Amino acid sequence: MAVSKNEAPASATPTDPARRRFLNTTTLAGIAGAGLTMGLAGCNESGKPTKAAAGGAASAPAAAAGEAVEYSKYEVPPGQLDAYYALSSGGHSGEVRIYGLPSGRLFKRIPVFNIDCLVGWGITNESKKIMGTNADGSLKYFTGDTHHVHPTYTDGTYNGKYIFVNDKIHGRLARVRLDTMECDRITEIPNVQGFHGVFPDKRDPVDANINSTTRVFCGAEFQIPTPNDGHDLDKPENYFALFTCVDAETMEVRYQVKVDGNLDLIATSYDGKLACSNQYNSENGVHYEQMMTAERDACVFFHIERIEAAVKAGKTFRIGNSPVPVVDGRKAANADPKTALTCYVPVPKNPHGVNASPDGKYFACSGKLSPTATLISNELVLKWFDGGLKEPRDTVVAEPEIGLGPLHTAFDNRGNAYTTLFLDSQIVKWNVEAAIKSYQGDKNAKPVVDRIDVHYQPGHGFTSMGETKEADGKFFLSDNKFSKDRFLPVGPLHPETAQLIDISGDKMKLVADHAVYSEPHDSIVIRRDIIKTRQVYDVAEFPNAVKDPKDCRVERNGKKVTVYLTSQAPTFGLREWTVKRGDEVTIILTNHDKVQDLTHGFAIPKYNVNFIVNPGETKSVTFKADKPGVYWAYCTNFCHALHLEMRSRMLVEA
Amino acid sequence: MAVSKNEAPASATPTDPARRRFLNTTTLAGIAGAGLTMGLAGCNESGKPTKAAAGGAASAPAAAAGEAVEYSKYEVPPGQLDAYYALSSGGHSGEVRIYGLPSGRLFKRIPVFNIDCLVGWGITNESKKIMGTNADGSLKYFTGDTHHVHPTYTDGTYNGKYIFVNDKIHGRLARVRLDTMECDRITEIPNVQGFHGVFPDKRDPVDANINSTTRVFCGAEFQIPTPNDGHDLDKPENYFALFTCVDAETMEVRYQVKVDGNLDLIATSYDGKLACSNQYNSENGVHYEQMMTAERDACVFFHIERIEAAVKAGKTFRIGNSPVPVVDGRKAANADPKTALTCYVPVPKNPHGVNASPDGKYFACSGKLSPTATLISNELVLKWFDGGLKEPRDTVVAEPEIGLGPLHTAFDNRGNAYTTLFLDSQIVKWNVEAAIKSYQGDKNAKPVVDRIDVHYQPGHGFTSMGETKEADGKFFLSDNKFSKDRFLPVGPLHPETAQLIDISGDKMKLVADHAVYSEPHDSIVIRRDIIKTRQVYDVAEFPNAVKDPKDCRVERNGKKVTVYLTSQAPTFGLREWTVKRGDEVTIILTNHDKVQDLTHGFAIPKYNVNFIVNPGETKSVTFKADKPGVYWAYCTNFCHALHLEMRSRMLVEA
Repeated sequence: MAVSKNEAPASATPTDPARRRFLNTTTLAGIAGAGLTMGLAGCNESGKPTKAAAGGAASAPAAAAGEAVEYSKYEVPPGQLDAYYALSSGGHSGEVRIYGLPSGRLFKRIPVFNIDCLVGWGITNESKKIMGTNADGSLKYFTGDTHHVHPTYTDGTYNGKYIFVNDKIHGRLARVRLDTMECDRITEIPNVQGFHGVFPDKRDPVDANINSTTRVFCGAEFQIPTPNDGHDLDKPENYFALFTCVDAETMEVRYQVKVDGNLDLIATSYDGKLACSNQYNSENGVHYEQMMTAERDACVFFHIERIEAAVKAGKTFRIGNSPVPVVDGRKAANADPKTALTCYVPVPKNPHGVNASPDGKYFACSGKLSPTATLISNELVLKWFDGGLKEPRDTVVAEPEIGLGPLHTAFDNRGNAYTTLFLDSQIVKWNVEAAIKSYQGDKNAKPVVDRIDVHYQPGHGFTSMGETKEADGKFFLSDNKFSKDRFLPVGPLHPETAQLIDISGDKMKLVADHAVYSEPHDSIVIRRDIIKTRQVYDVAEFPNAVKDPKDCRVERNGKKVTVYLTSQAPTFGLREWTVKRGDEVTIILTNHDKVQDLTHGFAIPKYNVNFIVNPGETKSVTFKADKPGVYWAYCTNFCHALHLEMRSRMLVEA
Repeated sequence: MAVSKNEAPASATPTDPARRRFLNTTTLAGIAGAGLTMGLAGCNESGKPTKAAAGGAASAPAAAAGEAVEYSKYEVPPGQLDAYYALSSGGHSGEVRIYGLPSGRLFKRIPVFNIDCLVGWGITNESKKIMGTNADGSLKYFTGDTHHVHPTYTDGTYNGKYIFVNDKIHGRLARVRLDTMECDRITEIPNVQGFHGVFPDKRDPVDANINSTTRVFCGAEFQIPTPNDGHDLDKPENYFALFTCVDAETMEVRYQVKVDGNLDLIATSYDGKLACSNQYNSENGVHYEQMMTAERDACVFFHIERIEAAVKAGKTFRIGNSPVPVVDGRKAANADPKTALTCYVPVPKNPHGVNASPDGKYFACSGKLSPTATLISNELVLKWFDGGLKEPRDTVVAEPEIGLGPLHTAFDNRGNAYTTLFLDSQIVKWNVEAAIKSYQGDKNAKPVVDRIDVHYQPGHGFTSMGETKEADGKFFLSDNKFSKDRFLPVGPLHPETAQLIDISGDKMKLVADHAVYSEPHDSIVIRRDIIKTRQVYDVAEFPNAVKDPKDCRVERNGKKVTVYLTSQAPTFGLREWTVKRGDEVTIILTNHDKVQDLTHGFAIPKYNVNFIVNPGETKSVTFKADKPGVYWAYCTNFCHALHLEMRSRMLVEA
């Protein structure tokens, strides 16, 4: 049963006649044109085509609107605050973003892997140190591709301390402080490419007394030669991918696990014992047709305690000159459950996404090339590792057919799961217990209880607090990959749509279309009371602070010149300073304004210097004074009635 | 009269007890602390302190709410479209942004002076050519500070062709095509620093048959030595600033005008004859106290036809090695009205902003350090240039006292002006005809008709279509410099607020708080029917296009290797390509997907390559293959159910 018979009114939004045409001509036709029809034909576990596979689900729109939606209920009028933060990845913009919900207001972009010349990220010495530089001081990378953002946990819910985010391009993990909402660490993971999924643990897998995040687990999609040094380039049979554990506090790589296939997303158990990843390309192919020949790939479970014991026992190897210990987690090397480090649970082909249910009992792994979601029991996986189950597949407790192109699943607090259907452009709501009963043979159990159209092609979807014990069942946010006609046209590059759905009742209601710059993949919807931010820095917390405006001065050491500056609206601490052509100039600027929101900017014409200093903050830049002349350093961040007059002269002698 | 007695209910927003405290402790105290109290004491033309100057306006809040605002009237529910585009500057983010109004949705960021690794701006060969490079191929600049965005005109209203935007840091003018909403040209203006104001002409000043934009006028704030070559560094008496004319089509600098003081914003007349700029620092000082000793600065008018005749006649000089002809537009050199190129109309000290009224009759120039706006008659300025007026000051027809810290003025279609009051944190609505009558001595004329609190410290404000003949009097948008407590806190860097005000009735109504990333200065609110965008490129319009997927290939020429690629979801045209370590590799990628919104991305791990190709578009990158190994080039822009599998191998032989 791919389409629920229980199709009551789903939404009151205007219908769009172009919608199904787009679905039929673009996505499906594109697949057909590439000879991939078979790849997308929905198949149940027996291999027989389902109604959904025959196009039933794709051509049957969600039921038309019944009750009108009171949109005003979801608005945030002037002077009122949002109920939730959405912490969101920014895709190939390389950043992280902070939205308010339900308003959809964008509060902040947090530059992470990208250069942001407003903040000075990638320009100041402090940010360059975090991002990493080449020997000549230039940035090693200034591009990034952020997909997954996940905060640290205490006792099964968010503790408001950090958020972690991946960079898929260069294989890096970054950490953002949630008090200041600024990136403080970036770690490049050795010997991986296509690092995509990331998830912190929720409690310590070894020490039962530690009920907070201590480790971050990272997947990697692309198989490469290891070491990737230009030898044996075209021997894919030697390629492999790695699963990586990073220390959440030190941000150092603790160990890696050699795996079969490509690892996509990561989830972790509430008991701290397991991490898992949906695996595609179990075929270890290098071309995409090869990647989907097998009927099943896997959801790979990692027994963290055993892996760490193996690392401790030295059952490891090294790759190239990487100091990181690696254990063998491939399927063939872990056949005996009682000693296995990993468990490969077969799921329908090319799964895309795995998510843990808030009750800690299940993981939902979606099919992508199958119209199903696979529900795996946390308890049964542990039982398999204990030798109590014959086959990994015995850990599966449900596999409902839900529609075409299922990707990611979120949960409410009433036992329901919400899965994005990329091809159907729908969100399907299904009941976990009903799915289990149906899988057990109960023909009266109807897993799918509702579905709603979204616009268009949803990728990730997430519920408010849905990845914690405190899932509250209020909102679902659908990050859609195509917006098409939903907003005013802005040329060839369309925004994406983030559609807000009220899931508090029996029927889902579409309540807002938010436009978002490409390309948020995943978000966390977090109650506002959990986040405690600081609005003002303490001057003393910066070791290089210019602690008193009277300390403003110029110091010369050979060709190296340091300019010590302060800012206090509407002036900088020096009216002018003189350097010589060829000097290496370092400017250290401390903002002595202590009132919140009194940020100053600092730009030097023709010198590519541009950054801000928030209240109490210190930043520095270093550059070569290679252009003689007068250069007016000025405040770029409107600060005061005399902001325009806030400037000082840098005199560069020829 | 600084505060209108006509203070009827202004808004229904919750009041904020912290608001006035902030005003009193931060901005004013900051000024007082810097010894600038005198500078901000509001003075009328006679020099006597006004009620506003004594703090009356600052401590008297706008009247409390009366009628409730129906916020839902201003919402844009899912599936519906906005009525207006807001084209907005992005301040020191270096970009331009496109919002929808009234929703406040951000549809697009247009990278201009910044690197944007989503689009590949600053990464692709095509964008680097527009941005400008050093001899080694690296970007000359990758920072910018955009303040003013103004589109091209035909017949006194927008024609939807281009929008121009300044870069204050490096003195550049950029142009953005409005059909694709992408930057197509950047020009660096010689011998200026602090290029701030920009405005296109509205019709040709010479050829009466040309009723469209042909020139763009640019101000410059900072006075510098000319040439700025490191000689005579500290002789401010030799410093000066320039007013610049750029050709709107070729983007070449046509001529420059040497001026007194610092030029801030620019406005142009509807008859094409005049451009003008509010001038501060008529004292030609280098420190801010010097910049406000004079009681009056000026609004400088440029007689374009005469200037161009002087340029044609060779009454010019050159600066350093710049080929641009410069005429002398200083006050002393233009004393005779009948031959003058410029007219310095005295206005109260340190004005910040000048705007033309939609009826073509007036320019409003605000006082900033005076509680007044000065209204100057276009007709009378022309009369002065004809010798028909004794003093430039005789062109002033009104100077209403409107409140503390007036910055920018916008207009409706009913004869009203709306000025942002930075210090009062208000928008004041004043009637133009009443202001003129009051200035003429009519004591019954009350210019100020309404005022409304905004949150907090407004900079620019603009009305829907307000800078055109088609001003429609529907909305005013206030871009405020501080948001403080208006949004959920996000650490030390707050967003700004863009507050939407309904001005269609007698009383202004605050209807929405939009959060915006720092720091929009100015916007244009433009009816949606004026913008005609293209959603798909034509492959043929790119000279380097890979026109047929069959043309995908690798060509080697010595150490230079060119990889010709196409994209069609879910594959690139080559599954793999091989190069040698040390090769200079150019990848040319043409997107053959022709369905709108089917953008692909292209990233190469460890090589800092990241860009998108929109439908039908071609882009290229060039890099040195300095890292041997296997690198999976992959699609970063979710495009298809098999997006994750859309990748190809680059093999770099050691």
